[in-house]
Amino acid sequence: MSDPLVIGLDVGGTSSRVVVTDLNGVRFGTGRGGGGNPVAHGAQAAAAAVGAALDAALAGIDPGRVRAAVIGLAGGSMERRALDQVWPDHGITCPVRQIGDAVVAFAAGTASPDGTVLIAGTGAIAGQITARRLGLISDGHGWLLGDRGSGFWLGLHAVRAALADIEEGIGTSLTAMIRDRLVGQSVFATRRGLVSALITAAHTGPPVTLSRFAPLVLEAATAGDPVAKNLIAEAAGHLLRSTAAVRGPEETSPIVLAGSLLTVSTPLARRVREEMGARWPGAEVASALDGAAGAAWLAALSLDPGAPHPAAVVGGG
Amino acid sequence: MSDPLVIGLDVGGTSSRVVVTDLNGVRFGTGRGGGGNPVAHGAQAAAAAVGAALDAALAGIDPGRVRAAVIGLAGGSMERRALDQVWPDHGITCPVRQIGDAVVAFAAGTASPDGTVLIAGTGAIAGQITARRLGLISDGHGWLLGDRGSGFWLGLHAVRAALADIEEGIGTSLTAMIRDRLVGQSVFATRRGLVSALITAAHTGPPVTLSRFAPLVLEAATAGDPVAKNLIAEAAGHLLRSTAAVRGPEETSPIVLAGSLLTVSTPLARRVREEMGARWPGAEVASALDGAAGAAWLAALSLDPGAPHPAAVVGGG
Repeated sequence: MSDPLVIGLDVGGTSSRVVVTDLNGVRFGTGRGGGGNPVAHGAQAAAAAVGAALDAALAGIDPGRVRAAVIGLAGGSMERRALDQVWPDHGITCPVRQIGDAVVAFAAGTASPDGTVLIAGTGAIAGQITARRLGLISDGHGWLLGDRGSGFWLGLHAVRAALADIEEGIGTSLTAMIRDRLVGQSVFATRRGLVSALITAAHTGPPVTLSRFAPLVLEAATAGDPVAKNLIAEAAGHLLRSTAAVRGPEETSPIVLAGSLLTVSTPLARRVREEMGARWPGAEVASALDGAAGAAWLAALSLDPGAPHPAAVVGGG
Repeated sequence: MSDPLVIGLDVGGTSSRVVVTDLNGVRFGTGRGGGGNPVAHGAQAAAAAVGAALDAALAGIDPGRVRAAVIGLAGGSMERRALDQVWPDHGITCPVRQIGDAVVAFAAGTASPDGTVLIAGTGAIAGQITARRLGLISDGHGWLLGDRGSGFWLGLHAVRAALADIEEGIGTSLTAMIRDRLVGQSVFATRRGLVSALITAAHTGPPVTLSRFAPLVLEAATAGDPVAKNLIAEAAGHLLRSTAAVRGPEETSPIVLAGSLLTVSTPLARRVREEMGARWPGAEVASALDGAAGAAWLAALSLDPGAPHPAAVVGGG
């Protein structure tokens, strides 16, 4: 008889990733599809994206061996129902548990059941995790009302800073980068003409797509641009405040950093880690590198309380 | 032979107003139509709105008597062309001069050719006026990138403050007002459910319509709400900074306040006036109460350099 397998699925706004492992965390398959959030993409497109990722991950595997599955997805039961048909379509008959993306991110970074997760990608949210459930949250209010310190926030403030710099500043490298991305090498007769063109260009596409400028801020800060460095410091301050809103000053449980701005080595990630080290000196600060592996581990835990965390599995992280 | 008449037209986002006067500022007709900005409303609707206002203002008046017209409108020549046919349709054959809305607002508030204008309605902009032309400007970047201290800014920050107050505050009266306007008397099982409902409700309609909450901030500040008072102080700070960006510290020319937030007696208008009095003690701070009258005065000036300013005309202000 074959050993039981589990599926971990991490559904994000831009990609859906699947990992199939055994209870020891050994990988049997992986798959990747497009963004699979039913709210953002519509139920059909979301089901197709998740289905494609499952197809790839289950290639050559008997789906009857899958005994537990965990799907990490922002949103509630309505979001999950949009994906309900995907599972029987792939021969998966075991229970499929939906868990908030913050809990999955936390599990991807630490084996501890309790702690704090801070996610900064396009949006930003901090959450208290207790017994692998989400407790208090802070921010996550979306680009219009919050997401302070997120990729959108950085991109928006980079454009604002470029406008201010053109109007009354010294012409920093960040301004040149933003200008180049928004209006290329176009020449303008007046400063006001340039400002108008930049404002118009910044409004092409939905506001949230201003997050496309966040990498420019990271790049400029790395090169020493003072405005970019200030924005990074301010973003880190927002993220720390959100974290402190859900985490006591004496807390020593792990902190997990997640999202594209914090899981690779960026000036923002370094700054956030420094400030966290100063504020919570006893706490481990880990990164959630692979949400799907975290989800698979949670699925494995439901079958075997001793299932090893991905970070402890050789070749499984 | 009848005395010559002039037309002043103030075209705004929500209304278009027309005044017909003689060269002494005595009113012969007034009219009002819907929003007449061709960019915001489309060329046809804009022409219809302006046409309706002109119909009313010219009732019983021989249009051949009109010798000069000034139209105040944000935007450039493209915007004006959308309204070109309106004038011959009403028998107006004299030159029609288009002037930026900031210059018209300034003229409505003072007879001086030089000074500073600060406009705060849905948006916010400060401008330097020299010889009745717009020089330096500050902000006016629109709700996404700027308009700091505007009605949109106040409304946005009122909703943000309400969310923060619900999550970790003391429950101020402003929060109760915002909650009531967004979700009425609905009851929520959890604080998080309330926050989610408020966020969803705040996203109905285009973001710029968050300016609808600005009057709540003014009202709450008047009643002593500490959060509202802080928002007013912060908005005033933004407006003062925009003003200082286009006005030297030793400047003594007049400052004209315009826009719905500053032309009536609001806590914000009082705060702005106080801070301006402290920063530019020698300067007159006037209000642009009637943009159409300002436009008509500019039209009269083009025929008679001694035409009296509306503020000096009994019954003409």
